[in-house]
Amino acid sequence: MTPPFQKVALIGLGLIAGSMAHAMREQGLAERISGHARSAATRETAAEIGLVDEVTETAAEAVRDADLVVLAVPVGAMAEVAAEIAPHLAPGAILTDVGSVKQAVIDAVAPHVPAGVHFIPGHPLAGTEHSGPRSGFATLFRNRWWLLTPLPDTDPAALDRLESLIRAMGANVDTMEPPHHDLVLAVTSHAPHLIAYTMVGVADHLRRVTESEVIRYSAAGFRDFTRIAASDPTMWRDVFLHNKEATLDILGRFAEELFVLQRAIRMGDGQHLHDYFTRTRAIRRGIIEAGQDTAAPDFGRSAKAD
Amino acid sequence: MTPPFQKVALIGLGLIAGSMAHAMREQGLAERISGHARSAATRETAAEIGLVDEVTETAAEAVRDADLVVLAVPVGAMAEVAAEIAPHLAPGAILTDVGSVKQAVIDAVAPHVPAGVHFIPGHPLAGTEHSGPRSGFATLFRNRWWLLTPLPDTDPAALDRLESLIRAMGANVDTMEPPHHDLVLAVTSHAPHLIAYTMVGVADHLRRVTESEVIRYSAAGFRDFTRIAASDPTMWRDVFLHNKEATLDILGRFAEELFVLQRAIRMGDGQHLHDYFTRTRAIRRGIIEAGQDTAAPDFGRSAKAD
Repeated sequence: MTPPFQKVALIGLGLIAGSMAHAMREQGLAERISGHARSAATRETAAEIGLVDEVTETAAEAVRDADLVVLAVPVGAMAEVAAEIAPHLAPGAILTDVGSVKQAVIDAVAPHVPAGVHFIPGHPLAGTEHSGPRSGFATLFRNRWWLLTPLPDTDPAALDRLESLIRAMGANVDTMEPPHHDLVLAVTSHAPHLIAYTMVGVADHLRRVTESEVIRYSAAGFRDFTRIAASDPTMWRDVFLHNKEATLDILGRFAEELFVLQRAIRMGDGQHLHDYFTRTRAIRRGIIEAGQDTAAPDFGRSAKAD
Repeated sequence: MTPPFQKVALIGLGLIAGSMAHAMREQGLAERISGHARSAATRETAAEIGLVDEVTETAAEAVRDADLVVLAVPVGAMAEVAAEIAPHLAPGAILTDVGSVKQAVIDAVAPHVPAGVHFIPGHPLAGTEHSGPRSGFATLFRNRWWLLTPLPDTDPAALDRLESLIRAMGANVDTMEPPHHDLVLAVTSHAPHLIAYTMVGVADHLRRVTESEVIRYSAAGFRDFTRIAASDPTMWRDVFLHNKEATLDILGRFAEELFVLQRAIRMGDGQHLHDYFTRTRAIRRGIIEAGQDTAAPDFGRSAKAD
């Protein structure tokens, strides 16, 4: 069977692009994959492990004759990359991105896209706390959601083609308005990440006085926070700077709620706490029913590593 | 080989007590295990699945002739249970607990302990978001820390005996002053749990307007929060009410830090965010090196459930 894409160009060779390369190869979705990363060290590693068929010195080279171009760079780098590759995009090519924020990426990229190129912004809801060209794996997208935020003039045939590719990598596709995407992600991902970073920072201060006890005895809650807070600093800096309004809105609500619970602790209002904690349990059940996680005990992870 | 304990009494038959029963049976650590739970439904389930050798109607019956008694009830229930069992404790018995707070448990239990009974407060740093008599499993404690906070007059031989039992269940033992335990746990566990509960509550409000999108698209951060926030409401209510000072102290520091990061987002201070996020990565590495978690990608969990 002929692969659905002749040449896929991956701009940026981190966790997401690397996982796409693995998944597309495993499923035979691209005749050829070229890749470019700004960092020479990343390009070298990618070439060494054969992550893609061809590692190019420039982004422009990578996109030449590609029928699919994927921008997999931090959100803050999208504008520059788009400007650089725009004159080299093939007519009829699909251009997509994997940024965690959508409106800011559209504002940065759309003005550069030449007529005849189909720009369809996207965001795979998948990741780990690891980054770099060695961090990808073929199953990263399996059973995860991949949101697309097509523009009003998006060509339905191009959208179909991109959706088929994404489904072939194992993900589910949904479409959404860009600002709505940014609000939903602020609450499900961006605010939680900032909160996890903050808590780990607080522990860091305390750690200095307790000689690593905090690390040694990091129980349930804190371990999960540190995993979240170990994510790529550049990517997350850009997320917060480019989804500023929605993130600050959610963080404001969060601070209000937290103060109410803090007050309940201070006043000894056990009923309030119990009611609140009972309600949050139901949300967890909803997530398990929605298939976005399993009910398997969290702590199995460490047992498995024995 | 004769088991090290003749009769172990488990008061409370939830996740921790159930896991102890499984682990002690697997390792042959008790000749006989009796158990009691306040709820008739819990007692019925425990008897039905044969969790222990004998399920008793009262706590007093369970502890009769036991050479080890484990209080595995919510922190707020410790005083009442201690008062009830005290007259029935066998001379020379070891009495321990598994509460997440230590000073408050000591204040609640110690006044009831008769002379000749060795009260050694303890806290296994292990758990899942599940609770109840069916939730336990033998490997829960494997490679986890089990903190003991012996009192000034604790008998060294009794302490040795309890430590050996805990090690035989797979855990590592360390001892600590009770107030210090409560501070360390406030930062590694109690504050993170309250924060997770809060964030899930915020999402709950938003969920009402976005028709379950928040659940459907719950990415990395939020999923981890919901797992934490699904923990037993009664247990956690009691933790916060009984470790009030340390928890409020850490939450105060947390709010300060969060506001500084919120301000950096508002002002567009990318350098501050990047520096902060880079520092938190190092803490994560420390935890992996300390053996409290693995570097395996978090998202493997859902792939495994396919």
